[in-house]
Amino acid sequence: MRYVMVQIPKSTTPALPAPRSVPTSADVARLAGVSRATVSYVLNNTSAVRISEPTRRRVHQAAKELGYVPHAAARSLRAGHSRMVLMPAPAVQAGPLYSQFLNDLQWALGRLDYTVVQYGSVGLCDDEAARAWAELRPVAVLVPGVELGPAGVAVLKRSGARAVVTLGSEPVEGAHALLMDHEGVGRVAGAHLHARGRRRVGVVVPEEPGLESLSRLRLAGVRDALAGTDAVVTELPLAYEEEAAARLAARWRELGLDAVFTYNDEYGMLLMRALQDEGVRIPQETAVIGADDLMLGRLLRPRLSTVHIELPSGRDLAELVDRAVREPGAAPETHQVLGSSVVHRESS
Amino acid sequence: MRYVMVQIPKSTTPALPAPRSVPTSADVARLAGVSRATVSYVLNNTSAVRISEPTRRRVHQAAKELGYVPHAAARSLRAGHSRMVLMPAPAVQAGPLYSQFLNDLQWALGRLDYTVVQYGSVGLCDDEAARAWAELRPVAVLVPGVELGPAGVAVLKRSGARAVVTLGSEPVEGAHALLMDHEGVGRVAGAHLHARGRRRVGVVVPEEPGLESLSRLRLAGVRDALAGTDAVVTELPLAYEEEAAARLAARWRELGLDAVFTYNDEYGMLLMRALQDEGVRIPQETAVIGADDLMLGRLLRPRLSTVHIELPSGRDLAELVDRAVREPGAAPETHQVLGSSVVHRESS
Repeated sequence: MRYVMVQIPKSTTPALPAPRSVPTSADVARLAGVSRATVSYVLNNTSAVRISEPTRRRVHQAAKELGYVPHAAARSLRAGHSRMVLMPAPAVQAGPLYSQFLNDLQWALGRLDYTVVQYGSVGLCDDEAARAWAELRPVAVLVPGVELGPAGVAVLKRSGARAVVTLGSEPVEGAHALLMDHEGVGRVAGAHLHARGRRRVGVVVPEEPGLESLSRLRLAGVRDALAGTDAVVTELPLAYEEEAAARLAARWRELGLDAVFTYNDEYGMLLMRALQDEGVRIPQETAVIGADDLMLGRLLRPRLSTVHIELPSGRDLAELVDRAVREPGAAPETHQVLGSSVVHRESS
Repeated sequence: MRYVMVQIPKSTTPALPAPRSVPTSADVARLAGVSRATVSYVLNNTSAVRISEPTRRRVHQAAKELGYVPHAAARSLRAGHSRMVLMPAPAVQAGPLYSQFLNDLQWALGRLDYTVVQYGSVGLCDDEAARAWAELRPVAVLVPGVELGPAGVAVLKRSGARAVVTLGSEPVEGAHALLMDHEGVGRVAGAHLHARGRRRVGVVVPEEPGLESLSRLRLAGVRDALAGTDAVVTELPLAYEEEAAARLAARWRELGLDAVFTYNDEYGMLLMRALQDEGVRIPQETAVIGADDLMLGRLLRPRLSTVHIELPSGRDLAELVDRAVREPGAAPETHQVLGSSVVHRESS
């Protein structure tokens, strides 16, 4: 048997590893003719070590040729933390207002060189969820809603999270808190209807699962605004379905209501449509006010009055996260957010 | 000076490490009186090694007491992969239809013991994005839209992703493809309007950034359906604003259109409102059809005709991902998804 040495032209032999073998930093080091430590310094942009420009270029070139991607996990194991900000993905479908807020926040954190990761924690609750999040070793965790207790915060901090920020009605021990005054949404709606001379006020309480905590607070806000007046509040459970709205509208006159706060604009559109089909004149017989200030409310006739909700700005929140990451020892900050104001249109 | 030994009651001295030091598996091993390997076997649920129940209990107890959370990164470094399915978070605000799809998908993948992580890749494109995703070493990547090319797929696979699934109009080399026929949405809308006797068909093209790729395909579908007929298609750029819709409605009669496909139901609501304010009778003078089959279309008067879009079921997609993860060597699958059918209501 004879062996012939053949020089294979470079173009047909890309310096790629065998299919499905993952290139490592050792491969990069070999191809670039440097040490693994040098590869690590260059690719992690370490400024502590001086490395010449030509060497840097050689390492980057070799990494590119091999298709080498550093392992965030390995990097965070070395660094002790990542640039990852973890948020639980919403368990219920996010409304337009919250989706916009999330988008702004991602953008703002991205500009500060963080990566936002939304974690689908379907079916996990409290500490169990915190433990699952902690496994990813995020540098900060941002938790909207009421899903986290003090034990969960402690789990996250022990696993290396430098900042935990909650968005909810109550502060959680050990975490920064953005206090969202959801009662305030109901309070301004109730006060508005009262000021318009209404005294028999219905409040829509959505039957969709996942909205209870919010709808309870909005209802409590209406009650609070009308406490000590001669107005009466009636709770109106309602599913987000045409048929349910038609059934409610059919007994509207026996309910004897002269006003309704519809939880949000989408329920407002649903109920207003059913009331109009039933011949109830809006606002003469019944004043209607929604919440969220969505475009659709402006497109209804009569135009739907609403509560405009000012969510915290993505930029402010991103800066709070960044501040908290830089100073993990600082005392938790508490901020009141969620300004509520009535946008008075034709329906009330 | 005298020293007094005091036995501090257990309740006030939890076996926690000093604040901010992260407990390790070595701490767990020490407290449980077992080896680190045993801790790893127990906490990773390895079935290959037999470990007695009392020992298992002791390890779990110690882990709990210390607040020890395994490091997903370390675990995936050892195992070579994770149970993480990564999806890029949508760059534009997701509509209700897509949000619902995402929720179902997360749920279905969760039931198969995967964790869905939505990655906010604001400002990254193609290979750069793929490289960023690859750093998290997901076991599968699911990419809606057109953000990934063959090079990106290769980067992901080399970093250990066993499956890459794209949802788009074209297959991408090396990836499983769910082909979404967005032209079909326009095609059925165009055919419907033609069948209703309409010949001068406007097509709304949203001016919002991020919707171009979809709206172009829907427009092409309408053109396709009407090619070779005597019908004429007019492109109608429109911003999602009342004023823009009012301006378009004001010149409606000089445009001489007898029908309009409004891209989706939300634009349908916007334009229908403006046309009605302008005194245009719907459907007599102008037939209107939207798309997405949202609740709001049913609440309009006249009720809005629409194109119902059947997205792939979360369960089917989750099963495809799971199959692909189990058999990473199998040839990429291609599936046609996105069924389109007209829901004929009062507006057309």
